[in-house]
Amino acid sequence: MAAALSPQDIIRKKRDGGALERDDINRWIRGVIDGSFADYQSGALLMAIFLRGMSTEETVWLTDAMMRSGEIIEIPEVVAPKVDKHSTGGVGDKVSLILAPLAAAAGLAVPMISGRGLGHTGGTLDKLESIPGFRVGLTVPEYRRQLAKVGISLAGQTASLVPADRKLYALRDVTATVECVPLICASIMSKKLAEGIDALVLDVKFGRGAFMKRIEDARELAKTMVSIGRNMNRPTVALLTSMDRPLGRSVGHSLEVIEAIECLRGRAAGDLMEVTMELTARMVVLGGLESDVRSARGRLQRALDSGEALRKFREVIEAQGGDPRVVDDHDLLPAARRTVDVPAPRGGFVHDVDAMAIARVAACLGAGRSRVEDGVDHAVGVSRLAQAGEPIEPGAVLCRLHVNSEVHLADAIDLAKGAFAIGGSRPELSPMIREEIA
Amino acid sequence: MAAALSPQDIIRKKRDGGALERDDINRWIRGVIDGSFADYQSGALLMAIFLRGMSTEETVWLTDAMMRSGEIIEIPEVVAPKVDKHSTGGVGDKVSLILAPLAAAAGLAVPMISGRGLGHTGGTLDKLESIPGFRVGLTVPEYRRQLAKVGISLAGQTASLVPADRKLYALRDVTATVECVPLICASIMSKKLAEGIDALVLDVKFGRGAFMKRIEDARELAKTMVSIGRNMNRPTVALLTSMDRPLGRSVGHSLEVIEAIECLRGRAAGDLMEVTMELTARMVVLGGLESDVRSARGRLQRALDSGEALRKFREVIEAQGGDPRVVDDHDLLPAARRTVDVPAPRGGFVHDVDAMAIARVAACLGAGRSRVEDGVDHAVGVSRLAQAGEPIEPGAVLCRLHVNSEVHLADAIDLAKGAFAIGGSRPELSPMIREEIA
Repeated sequence: MAAALSPQDIIRKKRDGGALERDDINRWIRGVIDGSFADYQSGALLMAIFLRGMSTEETVWLTDAMMRSGEIIEIPEVVAPKVDKHSTGGVGDKVSLILAPLAAAAGLAVPMISGRGLGHTGGTLDKLESIPGFRVGLTVPEYRRQLAKVGISLAGQTASLVPADRKLYALRDVTATVECVPLICASIMSKKLAEGIDALVLDVKFGRGAFMKRIEDARELAKTMVSIGRNMNRPTVALLTSMDRPLGRSVGHSLEVIEAIECLRGRAAGDLMEVTMELTARMVVLGGLESDVRSARGRLQRALDSGEALRKFREVIEAQGGDPRVVDDHDLLPAARRTVDVPAPRGGFVHDVDAMAIARVAACLGAGRSRVEDGVDHAVGVSRLAQAGEPIEPGAVLCRLHVNSEVHLADAIDLAKGAFAIGGSRPELSPMIREEIA
Repeated sequence: MAAALSPQDIIRKKRDGGALERDDINRWIRGVIDGSFADYQSGALLMAIFLRGMSTEETVWLTDAMMRSGEIIEIPEVVAPKVDKHSTGGVGDKVSLILAPLAAAAGLAVPMISGRGLGHTGGTLDKLESIPGFRVGLTVPEYRRQLAKVGISLAGQTASLVPADRKLYALRDVTATVECVPLICASIMSKKLAEGIDALVLDVKFGRGAFMKRIEDARELAKTMVSIGRNMNRPTVALLTSMDRPLGRSVGHSLEVIEAIECLRGRAAGDLMEVTMELTARMVVLGGLESDVRSARGRLQRALDSGEALRKFREVIEAQGGDPRVVDDHDLLPAARRTVDVPAPRGGFVHDVDAMAIARVAACLGAGRSRVEDGVDHAVGVSRLAQAGEPIEPGAVLCRLHVNSEVHLADAIDLAKGAFAIGGSRPELSPMIREEIA
């Protein structure tokens, strides 16, 4: 075996456009953890990777090395297929809250480790914490136990999982090396693969409310992550979904929980349910419970119609210390002091709703987080968002703002008014799900 | 005025191939000194500069910012033109030891701040320190005073000069960002411009014994440095000189001092004197003492013939605490315990002497330094190097090794034997000085 290269040698190799060996990548990630690869050396290597790229093979090795930098959860006691979903993030994206109980009701186990919101997108953990008592800080034994008992664990990242990602992400953030496909893919996939899954479905969003504006970039990201999954023996499928408009009718933590409950009750339709059903159906197929997406959709519809999906949501809330009565009594969730309706200036059809503008409305109202250490207001946000394609009367509600502070209210109202485009005729809407990468 | 960019913004700009503004570069270098630009951020920026390059304008701004990171020496009390020479380093390159007294004898002031040897090249400071008592650690007031009195100061870098270069050089060394033309040029020129010069001559070496193997790279470096000098109102001329073979007949500290003294005595000819005379003549012209190189050569020849150059060397040795008697009694210099002659295996003409092989011989004997904190043996090295083009008898001395330790002696002898190519006919030699960049 050749002697391990020095950090300089590894940096030089990537600097000059070469491919790193598996040993080089292992040496780097080990050094990130034990300090033998200094932060300034990682800064230089991250920039070299940003500018020179990484092959899929290198990205797989990086994912594997990062995954093995900490604990890897294994859950042999759960015999149900363990399948999770990951989204690259969007505005009003409460899919996980619906998908997890629905998938569990359909017979899958859903080991789901989520993040908090940052920038313009909300985080599943923040939404769950709007439920009184809900505890996302599960220990690994709790997480395993609950998965075996309930079929869902909805947890936050623990310190023992993928410590290399925390370290590298912090460095990428301050060295302008965030927007780099292999680094993004290795970060996402190392965390997902460490949580104990058999298979994975990815919701890769593109459009003005997504991190990736262009479908080409989303496609590249999706293909890389699907390759990583396959290489690491975790069947992975990605859907490329549009994120030009907010997903569903609400943006804000408790407001999104309420919308998710209505969806689980079978009372919702539209973009949100379409995206949720298509993603969950892929999970069912990857888990081997049905042989095709069509039959999977049927199974999911039965789980909704029977009330089993909603029961599963009550069960997971109770298991994680939350008050399951919120499912039937939304008044138990935090509510804002007052609401302000934004009326339509004229009648016609809603042609467009700008996801970024609505995200900024929610941020003005206090739902957002601009730094990781900030808190969020669970009660505020936007509900009753008119959906593109719907007819609207003059003066009817375009959206309802849930307000706890007047400080940025005027800005929020102005932004909300500007977020909607209304036209005279019924618009042609492009489909939500554009491509499947498998 | 626009608000100062954050480190991330500055890194991103260069990452994406943009040009940095003067303010960005000032912000960086100020941050390197005050810590507001973290080392990992400099690591990433250095790599972005390495891969994206810098325009001459950016390089001038970087040089200026680095120069202004510390004290800038001004020496108005010296009325003679203050001209220095810088070499990019080679094997047996003792030009400074001859050139400085020669230039001073011709009427220039030579404010020369030099470095130590590292890797395969020797350093002027180490060579000077082989003279008993010679002190290179001049304070800035001492440096100024001596320049006024003697016309030469031969000093090491002080902590007050260009602190940004020390910091950045250390970072480049561990982040594989050393071999980058704008960074090399800014490092060299910021130090030279801070030492108080009016004009500068550069000896940019290329070939197997130089840092730059290819003349194209040397030319690019020379052009950039000449541009920087011109932009900062310090007339600068560069000669591109060959460094395939060792320069002169000796490699090693006290051995090179002896060779320099012989040159100052007017007893030497060949490549070493050619390179020295051509460089010094450019200094004389840049300093305005003569209007062309030809007349400058004449003035230098008179300074040699009159003994004034040698007297100047005695004077500077004495001024810096050294024993000036070494000029007339070489036995006062450190000598190795024994010598070993390497004989020619056959007769003919010396076709080639491999500079890198000879550098490795000197390193085997203990003359080299592989880490900055290592010491050197001033006594050891190689002398009587047969010169390319000379006829040689079978068994005649190809070179003489000066030995203090037997540990690597066998390797040294083998390397020395392999360093020479001997052929039957007189070889065609390419000229030492290939181009002048002004």
